[in-house]
Amino acid sequence: MRQEKTPTQGSITREPLPASTKVYVPGKLHNIKVAMREIALSDTVNKFGKVEKVEKNASVTVYDTSGPFTDPNKEIDLTKGIERIRQEWILQRGDVEELQDVSSEYGKQRLEDASLKELRFEHLKKPLRAKDGANVSQMHYAKKGIITPEMEYIAIRENQRIDEMNIGHQHAGESFGARTPIKWITPEFVRDEIAAGRAIIPNNINHPESEPMIIGRNFLVKINANIGNSAVTSSIEEEVEKAVWACRWGADTIMDLSTGKNIHETREWIIRNSPVPIGTVPIYQALEKVNGKAENLTWEIFRDTLIEQAEQGVDYFTIHAGVLLRYVPLTAKRVTGIVSRGGSIMAKWCLAHHKENFLYTHFEEICEIMKAYDVAFSLGDGLRPGCIADANDAAQFGELETLGQLTKIAWKHDIQVMIEGPGHVPMQLIKENMEKQLRECDEAPFYTLGPLTTDIAPGYDHITSAIGAAMIGWYGCAMLCYVTPKEHLGLPNKKDVKDGVITYKISAHAADLAKGHPGAQVRDNALSKARFEFRWQDQFNLALDPDTAREFHDETLPAEGAKAAHFCSMCGPNFCSMKISQDVRDYAAENGFNDNDVFAEGMKEKSKEFLQAGAEIYLK
Amino acid sequence: MRQEKTPTQGSITREPLPASTKVYVPGKLHNIKVAMREIALSDTVNKFGKVEKVEKNASVTVYDTSGPFTDPNKEIDLTKGIERIRQEWILQRGDVEELQDVSSEYGKQRLEDASLKELRFEHLKKPLRAKDGANVSQMHYAKKGIITPEMEYIAIRENQRIDEMNIGHQHAGESFGARTPIKWITPEFVRDEIAAGRAIIPNNINHPESEPMIIGRNFLVKINANIGNSAVTSSIEEEVEKAVWACRWGADTIMDLSTGKNIHETREWIIRNSPVPIGTVPIYQALEKVNGKAENLTWEIFRDTLIEQAEQGVDYFTIHAGVLLRYVPLTAKRVTGIVSRGGSIMAKWCLAHHKENFLYTHFEEICEIMKAYDVAFSLGDGLRPGCIADANDAAQFGELETLGQLTKIAWKHDIQVMIEGPGHVPMQLIKENMEKQLRECDEAPFYTLGPLTTDIAPGYDHITSAIGAAMIGWYGCAMLCYVTPKEHLGLPNKKDVKDGVITYKISAHAADLAKGHPGAQVRDNALSKARFEFRWQDQFNLALDPDTAREFHDETLPAEGAKAAHFCSMCGPNFCSMKISQDVRDYAAENGFNDNDVFAEGMKEKSKEFLQAGAEIYLK
Repeated sequence: MRQEKTPTQGSITREPLPASTKVYVPGKLHNIKVAMREIALSDTVNKFGKVEKVEKNASVTVYDTSGPFTDPNKEIDLTKGIERIRQEWILQRGDVEELQDVSSEYGKQRLEDASLKELRFEHLKKPLRAKDGANVSQMHYAKKGIITPEMEYIAIRENQRIDEMNIGHQHAGESFGARTPIKWITPEFVRDEIAAGRAIIPNNINHPESEPMIIGRNFLVKINANIGNSAVTSSIEEEVEKAVWACRWGADTIMDLSTGKNIHETREWIIRNSPVPIGTVPIYQALEKVNGKAENLTWEIFRDTLIEQAEQGVDYFTIHAGVLLRYVPLTAKRVTGIVSRGGSIMAKWCLAHHKENFLYTHFEEICEIMKAYDVAFSLGDGLRPGCIADANDAAQFGELETLGQLTKIAWKHDIQVMIEGPGHVPMQLIKENMEKQLRECDEAPFYTLGPLTTDIAPGYDHITSAIGAAMIGWYGCAMLCYVTPKEHLGLPNKKDVKDGVITYKISAHAADLAKGHPGAQVRDNALSKARFEFRWQDQFNLALDPDTAREFHDETLPAEGAKAAHFCSMCGPNFCSMKISQDVRDYAAENGFNDNDVFAEGMKEKSKEFLQAGAEIYLK
Repeated sequence: MRQEKTPTQGSITREPLPASTKVYVPGKLHNIKVAMREIALSDTVNKFGKVEKVEKNASVTVYDTSGPFTDPNKEIDLTKGIERIRQEWILQRGDVEELQDVSSEYGKQRLEDASLKELRFEHLKKPLRAKDGANVSQMHYAKKGIITPEMEYIAIRENQRIDEMNIGHQHAGESFGARTPIKWITPEFVRDEIAAGRAIIPNNINHPESEPMIIGRNFLVKINANIGNSAVTSSIEEEVEKAVWACRWGADTIMDLSTGKNIHETREWIIRNSPVPIGTVPIYQALEKVNGKAENLTWEIFRDTLIEQAEQGVDYFTIHAGVLLRYVPLTAKRVTGIVSRGGSIMAKWCLAHHKENFLYTHFEEICEIMKAYDVAFSLGDGLRPGCIADANDAAQFGELETLGQLTKIAWKHDIQVMIEGPGHVPMQLIKENMEKQLRECDEAPFYTLGPLTTDIAPGYDHITSAIGAAMIGWYGCAMLCYVTPKEHLGLPNKKDVKDGVITYKISAHAADLAKGHPGAQVRDNALSKARFEFRWQDQFNLALDPDTAREFHDETLPAEGAKAAHFCSMCGPNFCSMKISQDVRDYAAENGFNDNDVFAEGMKEKSKEFLQAGAEIYLK
């Protein structure tokens, strides 16, 4: 194993994306400032050599997950962590107390271990916890009718501050099984969706650095990026770097799946510097505490791990409480058995003790911990299929039914819940997954890994899964867990993280378009207009990844002049269909056919004339 | 412009893919040898350290588009072209004659031009043409009830020689609107599909080097790779290199979209060395002949170009005969006007002359040429949408209706037809495209470009479009035209061609799985079994791109030893779910629970017991 390294300032990218400015939209109900990214566009001044009247192109404001890192006005010291924007909101509710010390035994040990001094996050804060008897979950507030600052933040954020009048032409979407037709988001709507359990806001009171975001199928589709070292590779510095990098490109949440030695310290560094919610799979760390022997796991060790992580600020926990003893043998004849790490750990424990899964038997005790910090459940699909052959089988669907039962128990405690889903599913079986999940889990948000639509392309599983992800996002999946090109082959490096994030932004956005999320098409329209007008810089700047778009263009026509050219390397000047399209428009204008319908009518007349003259055969 | 360079032997990759052997399956009706690729697998000898009885893993035979280049027993001289495997079949039908000279004026000029000596393909053959009054199209033979060698070749090829008994578990697919449920392919079925116009076999009698393949929705979904230089970049050598490279990775057809100076010579080099059908857009070359002035195009110039290309061996022509005068103004208010090069050329011609499209008015004369060489129509979608906003609009669908009328005319002449489709379409509007195409064009095969499901990701449009391609393939699209990462930004280089091809093999295969094509899942199952058993080499070798899979694995665990390791870099030894799954199987075996159901029953009993003891709450 390599030497651990803690983060240094230089490892983080701080430049704003090209032509982009961080803007802050104030709230109306609360004293909040909602961060967004505004992309400035140039004017349309020149159409194929003709200078026409200058046309202004409105800037495009987009959802921004990159946090303060892309705001040059913010000073950031990684050793102190980023601004704690939610701290005041949390304290003002008056239902939390500051603890004098961390509550978990393990957490105390790590603090007392002098050998960890070099790795430890320097500016630790005291943890918060709900006062005795209080429930600090957003669901709890929502059910009481309260609109929290988090909810208002989300309402403004989801709308991307786009004026309803400015959408231009947008296709009507097709929303499957959504109870409410998708419309402009209001704070009340956010509250009602949270109260109904149809959406969650993962934001632990101990992670005040996170910007509120929502996961639910009546909102923008979200994506998660997994990071984390293993016993074999990676360091703390690299993981923090990957987390910030993933947010830069659009990750809505980060899961820290570290399984190495110093996962407690790694996690602290990540949370303190993360503007997005952090999820974990606590059983991974619990397993490390028993030296990798699943049979030695106990409820007490697991419980201590939950508290340890809740007090660090983890926003959602994957809990594999649906891996029941009776489902385990259903996997014995699968092609790829159990592929979820957490699922296999619990399966092994169940078999070793011939007892029911302790996460299931202690589920209500887990709820008690969750509500004291507002940690959301991500009920894990430990029996998800690991290949096409195993998709939608009895083990998978049995577990899903159990997750539905557990959802109801969590909701009884006002705890936010989402449900994890597959995995590997051929296209024709994807819809069944979504429909069954909505039915069994009473519309709790679904959070799937892909799914991969074929097994035969290791090295390209970001793509095999982007297909399934886009489809299930359209069908109603609320969050898509990314898959990188390294899936099945190795741990993702920084490039893989970016490839995975951009690929999943594509799937999520394609789903938003298909669902008809209001305003989703604004960016497509702006980019396409820029493309048509050969405003190359605007085309790059509106792209999900401006750097790569620019770089690819420059490979064939690197000169700056080419970016103002009214043709490109694909066709050359004579074959430019964009130019000919402009000729069509000019022709229409010159011939007084400004009204499209009149023009069409005129042309139809001409064409009819022609047909009558001898081309009747074509009408047969 | 750079100096033209003709192909050299060294530019072509000749190694077989790893662990792969070219096999030739003999026909029963005809003296044919159908080329396939057999991937050898290693035995399963060792499961997590325990040596069990050795289990043989059957080799997997896959559809192979790479031609003789991957057969080390074939000698190849690029200056002579590859083996003319169909030559005898064509001549034996007795309905063609060898011409003493090329028929086209332009073709003659090029031959007589001494300055082209260096570029010209060295071993030109005399062209073939149907005898007077003969029709040499496969549709013509099919309608007469003849099973040609081409049809038998295809039947064997489509089945991938997989024994029906060896499929193992395969999910039932869901086939939309297919008249015939998908089943094992027989030569009779191939003939009947061709006769009905539901499928085409593009194979010009002057391209005997091509291995017969079929495009139709009751067969494997095919992919096309576009290559071709432009006035700005590339050389003959590079284009031939790209063509062979695209075939190596799975391109089923190649379109040569060259628009540079020497496109006649470039095309000859490509066809003579291409084991797959070649398509072109003849209007591109016709436009070069009038120095890029669309208004100067004439039917005579176009006609000469068709004959020129037909005698070289082009297998299908994209003809934009559906761009009618009356549709052109319908594009004036689009966000991106007309984006098809061919479409825009014809639109410009129509406007300039205020006349109906000459491809439409001369359509029957075009048919006469097509049937003399068996060139298939690819009726071009000149008015396809160039962005999400323009999808499924009046211009696009108007043209599609006209293409339906033209299909009937072509069929009257027994000419094979496929229909080109979009483009840019959001997910919720894709199905409408497929359904309308089947209806308007009487089930002629559909051939789409993607479609891209969002406009916001230049640099990643292979992915934005892979989503749409997989979906429309599932819905019934017969061939998917690839999109490379360079789409909208520049011409693809060799790496982009491979990225595009692999991405589209993923979409096509995902669609085959979803449709339930027999045997499609065999490769998925074999790869997943290899993955589960940590047979790393087999996993790589079964992958669509073994080289990249191996390279990604080696980035984190490069040692050879790691490829025999029973864990990997993602999880490390303690977190290996595959290992734990094996424990589940061992436990089942050790406890006499070999019968899955008995085992499940026993576990259920235990679980029930447990629940009764105090966990009733979870059943509420």
